[in-house]
Amino acid sequence: MSATTATTTRAPKEPRNGVNTPVLLATINAVKETPALGKFQFRATNRWVDGTYSESRVESFSGAGGEHVHQSDFRYAADHPAVLVGQDRGPTPIEFLLHGLAACITAGIGNIAAVRGVTLTSVESRVEGDIDLAGILGLSSTVRNGYERIRISFTIAGDAPPEKLREIVEQSRARSAVFDVLTNGVPVDVTVNTR
Amino acid sequence: MSATTATTTRAPKEPRNGVNTPVLLATINAVKETPALGKFQFRATNRWVDGTYSESRVESFSGAGGEHVHQSDFRYAADHPAVLVGQDRGPTPIEFLLHGLAACITAGIGNIAAVRGVTLTSVESRVEGDIDLAGILGLSSTVRNGYERIRISFTIAGDAPPEKLREIVEQSRARSAVFDVLTNGVPVDVTVNTR
Repeated sequence: MSATTATTTRAPKEPRNGVNTPVLLATINAVKETPALGKFQFRATNRWVDGTYSESRVESFSGAGGEHVHQSDFRYAADHPAVLVGQDRGPTPIEFLLHGLAACITAGIGNIAAVRGVTLTSVESRVEGDIDLAGILGLSSTVRNGYERIRISFTIAGDAPPEKLREIVEQSRARSAVFDVLTNGVPVDVTVNTR
Repeated sequence: MSATTATTTRAPKEPRNGVNTPVLLATINAVKETPALGKFQFRATNRWVDGTYSESRVESFSGAGGEHVHQSDFRYAADHPAVLVGQDRGPTPIEFLLHGLAACITAGIGNIAAVRGVTLTSVESRVEGDIDLAGILGLSSTVRNGYERIRISFTIAGDAPPEKLREIVEQSRARSAVFDVLTNGVPVDVTVNTR
């Protein structure tokens, strides 16, 4: 039995895992036909409050040929913990990268499983990042500022053999936007205005 | 007047900007004397709910020679927006990178200004990331999956000349953990368990 036959048998074009698979496939086709629809810009604004504490808002983005406003007022705090002389009113900024990584690969797992006709029962992950603060504290010229290594471990269950479940995770990793940015880096331009 | 004189005049070792400057400087000295204290591990766990929606918890970390639990139960959702066939129950995972970047450089600005004896009145930033979804949708072999470019713009005000305020932002950028990870990348290990 070929993979194609197996896929067809499992009705990949029906909604599954909470994914509207027909709409997902139609969206991919729309971007294929009109590449400009795939150009997105995501945004956040941040406001310093005091010490190491600040708050961000994630309100709008552009893409699919237009401007969009998120349906909720997404606000996030960040701070340093007490051992780093903050007040722990939010996670440290770098902890949000771990959430982004786990959530990105997990979202892809949901979509890819649906397209492949696999019904998932659970996807859990744990992500860890090692960092030596000698970098950001300016105590070493050889220790980097950021994470030295990140590890993410998935535990996945669904109505497919282990090998097929592993392939879904691997395909999601291979197409993850956050995984790409974290592993390959991205140019960041910083500008400063004073008032 | 040298920079050192100016700094001394402005009593850098007193708390300022909500930063306990003496404790911050003592912490840096402690890590300098005992480098093992600077080794940290940050963590998150994530649980898929349905579709592209998942939730992360940021609960504990190790560092400064011990284990620590955040004082609050930090939970974050992520989803895809409707135009990407999600339900917009949270920002997209990659939007959290923008929050992390802004918050990281901003936290450093608060600390560095305090050490330099500068009282800040406001720090605001706007961050944007450009992404072409032809990558993650598998429609192109040349378009990358992640952001092609990120721009962050700070507007800062305080009791120092514009040039000194700019230097504070630049020093924070140069020592930012998130800026380092986003621009230089980090190795990410992915493991998969099935059940």
